[in-house]
Amino acid sequence: MSYQYDERIDGALATHDKSTIVAQLQSLIPDLQLLHEQEELRPFECDGLAAYRTTPMLVALPDQVAQVQALLRFAHERRIPVVARGAGTGLSGGALPLEKGILLVMARFNRILDVNAEAGTARVQPGVRNLAISQAAAPFGLYYAPDPSSQIACSIGGNVAENSGGVHCLKYGLTVNNILKLEIVTIDGECVTLGSDALDAPGFDFLALFTGSEGMLGIVTEVTVKLLTRPQSAKVLLASFDDVEKAGAAVAQIIGAGVIPGGLEMMDKLAIRATEDFIHAGYPVDAEAMLLCEVDGVESDVHEDAQRVEDLLRAAGATDIRVAKDEAERQRFWAGRKNAFPAVGRISPDYYCMDGTIPRRELPGVLKSIEAISSEYGLQVANVFHAGDGNMHPLILFDANVPGQTERAEAVGAKILELCVAVGGTITGEHGVGREKINQMCVQFNPDELGFFRALKAAFDPLGLLNPGKNVPTLHRCAEFGAMHVHHGALPFPELERF
Amino acid sequence: MSYQYDERIDGALATHDKSTIVAQLQSLIPDLQLLHEQEELRPFECDGLAAYRTTPMLVALPDQVAQVQALLRFAHERRIPVVARGAGTGLSGGALPLEKGILLVMARFNRILDVNAEAGTARVQPGVRNLAISQAAAPFGLYYAPDPSSQIACSIGGNVAENSGGVHCLKYGLTVNNILKLEIVTIDGECVTLGSDALDAPGFDFLALFTGSEGMLGIVTEVTVKLLTRPQSAKVLLASFDDVEKAGAAVAQIIGAGVIPGGLEMMDKLAIRATEDFIHAGYPVDAEAMLLCEVDGVESDVHEDAQRVEDLLRAAGATDIRVAKDEAERQRFWAGRKNAFPAVGRISPDYYCMDGTIPRRELPGVLKSIEAISSEYGLQVANVFHAGDGNMHPLILFDANVPGQTERAEAVGAKILELCVAVGGTITGEHGVGREKINQMCVQFNPDELGFFRALKAAFDPLGLLNPGKNVPTLHRCAEFGAMHVHHGALPFPELERF
Repeated sequence: MSYQYDERIDGALATHDKSTIVAQLQSLIPDLQLLHEQEELRPFECDGLAAYRTTPMLVALPDQVAQVQALLRFAHERRIPVVARGAGTGLSGGALPLEKGILLVMARFNRILDVNAEAGTARVQPGVRNLAISQAAAPFGLYYAPDPSSQIACSIGGNVAENSGGVHCLKYGLTVNNILKLEIVTIDGECVTLGSDALDAPGFDFLALFTGSEGMLGIVTEVTVKLLTRPQSAKVLLASFDDVEKAGAAVAQIIGAGVIPGGLEMMDKLAIRATEDFIHAGYPVDAEAMLLCEVDGVESDVHEDAQRVEDLLRAAGATDIRVAKDEAERQRFWAGRKNAFPAVGRISPDYYCMDGTIPRRELPGVLKSIEAISSEYGLQVANVFHAGDGNMHPLILFDANVPGQTERAEAVGAKILELCVAVGGTITGEHGVGREKINQMCVQFNPDELGFFRALKAAFDPLGLLNPGKNVPTLHRCAEFGAMHVHHGALPFPELERF
Repeated sequence: MSYQYDERIDGALATHDKSTIVAQLQSLIPDLQLLHEQEELRPFECDGLAAYRTTPMLVALPDQVAQVQALLRFAHERRIPVVARGAGTGLSGGALPLEKGILLVMARFNRILDVNAEAGTARVQPGVRNLAISQAAAPFGLYYAPDPSSQIACSIGGNVAENSGGVHCLKYGLTVNNILKLEIVTIDGECVTLGSDALDAPGFDFLALFTGSEGMLGIVTEVTVKLLTRPQSAKVLLASFDDVEKAGAAVAQIIGAGVIPGGLEMMDKLAIRATEDFIHAGYPVDAEAMLLCEVDGVESDVHEDAQRVEDLLRAAGATDIRVAKDEAERQRFWAGRKNAFPAVGRISPDYYCMDGTIPRRELPGVLKSIEAISSEYGLQVANVFHAGDGNMHPLILFDANVPGQTERAEAVGAKILELCVAVGGTITGEHGVGREKINQMCVQFNPDELGFFRALKAAFDPLGLLNPGKNVPTLHRCAEFGAMHVHHGALPFPELERF
């Protein structure tokens, strides 16, 4: 189970000449759009995790599967690493380019190929925006359920790469639960279909394996998604609490009562205030915490469930409960939650968004510990999370221009992730490992388990050319991370070692 | 992406002496229970697919993880193939032994290690029966959702190996959706944890990959399952139809209306009559088809949903609709469905159960085609299926003592599976590929896709010692299957080539 790839492979390219590679690609795939001038490359130097930046050697913007196949075959022969990118909204640096690598931007694969209302499916190219799928399905009363906060911009290919969730994934599942079939191209240029049009496929579950694999196993060129009937009705309740722990306990009560809310979100005081200043969603600025709980389904059920949730919230000690009185207010309640990150961005020069997942019952204890870490390091933390799933998004506020604060923010982030692992949770819920959390993978998994990841990677990409340095750490990296004080400057990409 | 394993590896053992192996194992793992006398081995010669029978070289019955590790290390060193077996209720021959292989029976791993009501989880050993988990969780108002018809006997380890479903998986998902964590032992004796106690785990989705992998990648030694709050209330409706197609259309209407039934099952006339004679469930013996539709959840919702389903059924042309008037009648309605297979077994000397899955909208057309195939081959087919999922279980009636009927039944089965693939479906929903459908894998997948399966298998079991000859066909086998008339007798295991 050895993994051949050395993440310093990039260095092997030092002998290759960029202009030669560009010329060869232009001659091999004449209709492939390539960007290689410095100013053209700048917009691609980072994704949504702007803390890491690298200018790629060149950017390829294919719009046909045959181009992707030819490009990958070329990269494979020449041992050139390839990083795939969707809309670039990812928050873990999964699409961070390599200085000597090709950035494969799938934005021009932007066509909706088919909406089959009878089957409840849509066939789309990977560059199609998440929200555009629901818009195309709307005339049929259908929609695509997973709704990351970035759904207006993020692409379905990126959603597949990161197994994205959203505020409704408690009831409707993550990306993996909402897709049927993928067409992918391997590093040696083979085009393979995974999954099927039916609800199950025989053999190993490659559909699940590729979903969330962060561009490490192949490049997605087509996605068949499931479409759901839009719920007849939805009601959202906003409950205020004078105590964060009471809000956490209320979450457990609602789930325990057998109600499955469409969404169940929690925000703490700092997040509430920042959001209310920005969006004017009508949030309770004096509350210590608030819950947003949406019930959806058939009209009469929704009415009953809302009543039930209201009773449970009251019993759990909510100081105020408001039911959105119409669709406009419902949308406003959600708009606040979906803009909580940029809202926090307005009150702090910089913020660092974490994405730990914990067993739901650990919520109150973990919130207390985060508060303690925050005090210890002297940095504020705003908490926004998918409470129903136990998926937390602590936002660490800092100012990169104040010497030492960036390092302190990173230390707080690392502490929080280690805390998540310690209570039986994980270092990522829906944002992926990417570049950001690669060191924490060494905390999450033991060497045998990491050996599994490497064995799998080696089976599909033995040279490690697809998105190297992300998601799966080398043992070498884990050893270095274990010895935290080793000077990293000796590696060829010091900017990759910042964390 | 080459796969080293030759399925005739079993033959390599011809030079090994069984008594030497037994003696070595006894000395290496003194506390390991071994069976090796012919009469002790007989009960293990087949699983639920009794059409295939092979006496294993020896049976090992470990009850500690360290024994499993030592046994696999021994088998790995000596190149002895290992087939895992749970309760032996599988319907695709996934636990069919090899004459020169070890049958690893996990029945003594039968302890429930922990029920954590607060977390809604249970940690169990793989030999624990499916129903026993729900029984242990019942005092806390919890249960384990997937409910294969064999739930009284089948083991959770077998459920994981086959990714089992059940009549409630339309709403509650398959095994893969209801487990959090697995402990597995690899062929080289490593013990590895997959998944986590939280709802998501970073990195590649090994939990999904191992679920349904049919004992090809490792041996499961512990399973952490999710427990759900038992629905407050459940109502089941039994609707009669004078036309199979109308019943099929009603399924689409119910799903399309946004109701998610706990279960939605269909049976045709032959299945209804056989079942009614056996179970006296109160089924409509004059109907051409019937639907069982269960709605569950909070009391008031259930009342509303049942009314809604009743209206939809009536509009779809149901000739009679009955709502189970109490829990006893509800249980009786389900008892019929869950005993439909043995009921059919009473009216025919033999039957052959298929397990194709098709896109739901193809139901009416596929039913017509099955009827045509049935007429063409002169064998009756009874249809029982999870209509809501598009997972069909045609039961082909035949008499093995009538020369030619077995072959005709197998031909009908193959035709039906090929029909499923042709309409965009798959050759298995929940019973797995096993030995039974290995040839149909060549129909379902192209050589590139099968190369993927082999690459994955090779990454975890390069010598192909875990359950060889099941699930993933060699290209050699596909080539032979493509040329249907090749005489198979040349292979060392002619009994494996019956299909």
